[in-house]
Amino acid sequence: CSCLGAAWAQTPPTSQVSVYGTLDVAVAQRQLAAQDAVRNVDSGLMETSHLGFRGSEDLGGGLKAQFDVSTFLRPDTGESTRGIPGEAFWSRSAWVGLSGDWGQVRLGRMSTLNFVNMMRFSPFGPAAGLNPVFLHTYIGSAAQPLTTIAGATDSGWNNTLAYTSPNWAGLTVAAQAAPSEGGPAGRRWGGSVVYAPAGQPLAMAVVYDRTERASLTFPLAFPTLGGAVPPLTGQQFSMWQLAASWDFGVAKVFGQWFDGQIDGTRPGPPPPDKTLKLRTWQLGATVPWGSGALLASVAQSRRDLSAGGSSDAQDATRTTVSMGYDYSLSKRTDLYAVGMSDRVTRLDGGTTWALGARHRF
Amino acid sequence: CSCLGAAWAQTPPTSQVSVYGTLDVAVAQRQLAAQDAVRNVDSGLMETSHLGFRGSEDLGGGLKAQFDVSTFLRPDTGESTRGIPGEAFWSRSAWVGLSGDWGQVRLGRMSTLNFVNMMRFSPFGPAAGLNPVFLHTYIGSAAQPLTTIAGATDSGWNNTLAYTSPNWAGLTVAAQAAPSEGGPAGRRWGGSVVYAPAGQPLAMAVVYDRTERASLTFPLAFPTLGGAVPPLTGQQFSMWQLAASWDFGVAKVFGQWFDGQIDGTRPGPPPPDKTLKLRTWQLGATVPWGSGALLASVAQSRRDLSAGGSSDAQDATRTTVSMGYDYSLSKRTDLYAVGMSDRVTRLDGGTTWALGARHRF
Amino acid sequence: CSCLGAAWAQTPPTSQVSVYGTLDVAVAQRQLAAQDAVRNVDSGLMETSHLGFRGSEDLGGGLKAQFDVSTFLRPDTGESTRGIPGEAFWSRSAWVGLSGDWGQVRLGRMSTLNFVNMMRFSPFGPAAGLNPVFLHTYIGSAAQPLTTIAGATDSGWNNTLAYTSPNWAGLTVAAQAAPSEGGPAGRRWGGSVVYAPAGQPLAMAVVYDRTERASLTFPLAFPTLGGAVPPLTGQQFSMWQLAASWDFGVAKVFGQWFDGQIDGTRPGPPPPDKTLKLRTWQLGATVPWGSGALLASVAQSRRDLSAGGSSDAQDATRTTVSMGYDYSLSKRTDLYAVGMSDRVTRLDGGTTWALGARHRF
Repeated sequence: CSCLGAAWAQTPPTSQVSVYGTLDVAVAQRQLAAQDAVRNVDSGLMETSHLGFRGSEDLGGGLKAQFDVSTFLRPDTGESTRGIPGEAFWSRSAWVGLSGDWGQVRLGRMSTLNFVNMMRFSPFGPAAGLNPVFLHTYIGSAAQPLTTIAGATDSGWNNTLAYTSPNWAGLTVAAQAAPSEGGPAGRRWGGSVVYAPAGQPLAMAVVYDRTERASLTFPLAFPTLGGAVPPLTGQQFSMWQLAASWDFGVAKVFGQWFDGQIDGTRPGPPPPDKTLKLRTWQLGATVPWGSGALLASVAQSRRDLSAGGSSDAQDATRTTVSMGYDYSLSKRTDLYAVGMSDRVTRLDGGTTWALGARHRF
Repeated sequence: CSCLGAAWAQTPPTSQVSVYGTLDVAVAQRQLAAQDAVRNVDSGLMETSHLGFRGSEDLGGGLKAQFDVSTFLRPDTGESTRGIPGEAFWSRSAWVGLSGDWGQVRLGRMSTLNFVNMMRFSPFGPAAGLNPVFLHTYIGSAAQPLTTIAGATDSGWNNTLAYTSPNWAGLTVAAQAAPSEGGPAGRRWGGSVVYAPAGQPLAMAVVYDRTERASLTFPLAFPTLGGAVPPLTGQQFSMWQLAASWDFGVAKVFGQWFDGQIDGTRPGPPPPDKTLKLRTWQLGATVPWGSGALLASVAQSRRDLSAGGSSDAQDATRTTVSMGYDYSLSKRTDLYAVGMSDRVTRLDGGTTWALGARHRF
Repeated sequence: CSCLGAAWAQTPPTSQVSVYGTLDVAVAQRQLAAQDAVRNVDSGLMETSHLGFRGSEDLGGGLKAQFDVSTFLRPDTGESTRGIPGEAFWSRSAWVGLSGDWGQVRLGRMSTLNFVNMMRFSPFGPAAGLNPVFLHTYIGSAAQPLTTIAGATDSGWNNTLAYTSPNWAGLTVAAQAAPSEGGPAGRRWGGSVVYAPAGQPLAMAVVYDRTERASLTFPLAFPTLGGAVPPLTGQQFSMWQLAASWDFGVAKVFGQWFDGQIDGTRPGPPPPDKTLKLRTWQLGATVPWGSGALLASVAQSRRDLSAGGSSDAQDATRTTVSMGYDYSLSKRTDLYAVGMSDRVTRLDGGTTWALGARHRF
């Protein structure tokens, strides 16, 4: 057991660490547009499994020191990643911070503001395999090679300096910046304004982030379609998010709008400079029902390539719909059944279903 | 210290995690048949060192949610594997489950039923470097290239759905299945019946597991002997285990019988289809003595290659004998001294000894 | 939360594990001699960040079992190393030990005696990026390709058997040995005598360690200077350390002397056998001031290559000076501002500064 730890010479006695995490495993059939269906025991569909260590120290005068380090993991195979080969072990979070009356400052690797609010304002939240808007904005797939601005630049940023304001009657302002350290990831910054007054049905958010001086190369379309090659090298990425939710009691409804742009270069017919626009909307609802909730969400993305050389294969629309029931055995443990349809212009559609269990600790 | 964790907004307050593990380090000389002797500081001889996180949540009405994630580690070098390069970090276990009056269901990566009972019914149990029957069934070595059915397909399975019955007056039934997800590991299933009535001297088990549609390639014999190449590609693996123990008080005796078969193909003289049979027996005893126990075990395996093309080099017998004393400093900490002899037909024998310490937490 | 762990069938109830660690992140400009300046969010400058698990079990009669496993990590990127690619996960420590009236015996991977005392007798202690003597003895850099004896053979040894005596009125004797297991690291042994009487201002240490039968190849000088190639292959490494500190109350002063030698071979003009001598001294002080301390330290190293073939590029002097203020928010959390100058014969000097936060848990 990890408590009652032995007094250790060099460690002061007041430290506090929580071991926390989530394990999510399902029996599933997965099939995105243009993919073959695969039946398997899978993980991370309803929430990316993870294990972490965090803590807080009261420094007096309202000041606190805080930290969080956590790793993704896949309980179906025992791997310590989200599925990205070679990913750093503590990719989920690794930061230390100070908070006080004036807000919180953090330094390290952490989730981006667009990512956090993408989850917050969608019914399926952290469901990397089942949340339509998550798939459209942060998960690369064969059906959507250049997912969006956000997916290209990761849901977490290295080397980040972040500020979060106190909650002023429901209003919270946050900003993040990460310097370029020479590599292809470039330099990044972003900000958000969230209004979510306690005890009120309304919550809303405006978020923006931007990546500059990057050099990230992607295929531009589904490989079997014309125009997929040569790939695009994106240099500047930006994304706006407008999001809102309203809790009617019998149902909570969600809406999101993402407007993203990638400026980059592509070998081939002139001009070499290309601008790729990706726009996504999401509508959804959660309906409390029995010891759980019905969940429904639809997301649609449209991709436009301007500045010449555009072909049919490059402009495309993707529509993804998920519906399911999430049954709570307790506040920490739930069972879920979810079905999802994924359709992309000119590609065969895909159907996914999952029966799973999630446990938080 | 890891207790008194700070209340964290999104985490309910009732979670329970245990940090647990075992560290096993020894000064040893290791030499299996046909190997050179190596003297070193080694780890994992008496038990594969590991570190894990597990917990249980009471859901009411007898229902519980449970989880376990754990990693192997080697305290002599700091590596996070059993010694298999590139192994997934959480290879020891990564599952989430529900249990109730009706038994327990688990999903994820976990030990196989044959593996668990191989340890249970042998005096040296988890001693991956010193338990004769462990070496014969799950540890590949230069002296035994194609260890057995079990070693080829790993002691843990990915993507597993498992059921364990309640204990009915000593009787427990378990089943595991893992779908093929396309890779070379194939699809796997198995079951066990264990009878171990509380307070009685007798315990016994019947276990079976099977791997189908695999594609796992191995050298067929010791490299310096004829017939080692070309390698065999095993497609279907099956193993029966019959095991029993009887506790006489002054001594507890153990017996095991493993009957394994690999059906595969091999380039070279026709017919290409080969059937390899591996049969292992183990006899052993533990004798309580002072603040510890004397341990002794002998395992013998015989390998037969049928369906033509057999040479002397491919049929072989291996006999391994271990004797030692395990001294308990407490229920969690022990010191041990073990000697082992390993002999294989037509190869030079090997002698191993180890003086080690094991600590569980 | 990691306490109140569920009782687990096979685990005795008395176990004790502490989760501990340090996270250190800074905004910094880093520039050693002959390097370009890089501004970034960095980690590990004031102390290499880490996360570990340790515990102690009382075995009665004054006997205790102890263990420690810990991993380095980099909060700026989430990586689980000090920055050495492919490094084992538990590289910081992985050992199990027994202690009693007679001292402590440990087995596994652990820090060397020279390394521990290098930190103890310098004002900046574990500051891998800001402590001059740490940089000179254990951190390879473009400005100092063959850092010293110590850096070449790592600050931690695998496969180590260690003894530490009880504290006899301030006197402690320790010894470590690690057998050669065939690889290029060779066999290693060392010892230390530390005199640090409780309540007295004086502390002093004599340390020696030695690596034999190694085969470690290094560039011999800064790449752009003559004589850098061909590289040296070191076979025998030895290092003496003499260190002392005196606490005057208003200030604590530190002094260290390192005398190291590498015997090796180098292709090229005869004779092939070379002896490289590296001598380092350090002087420093900590001055308590407000809720923190002023820190200052200077280290100078001189490198001499004897036995023929020496060129100007190979004999060199490096001088590094650091000054800073370390402000304690609590015993566990501090903020720091440090500046450092690094100068090497015939190379451009470098200037480093860092503003950082460190939190221990």
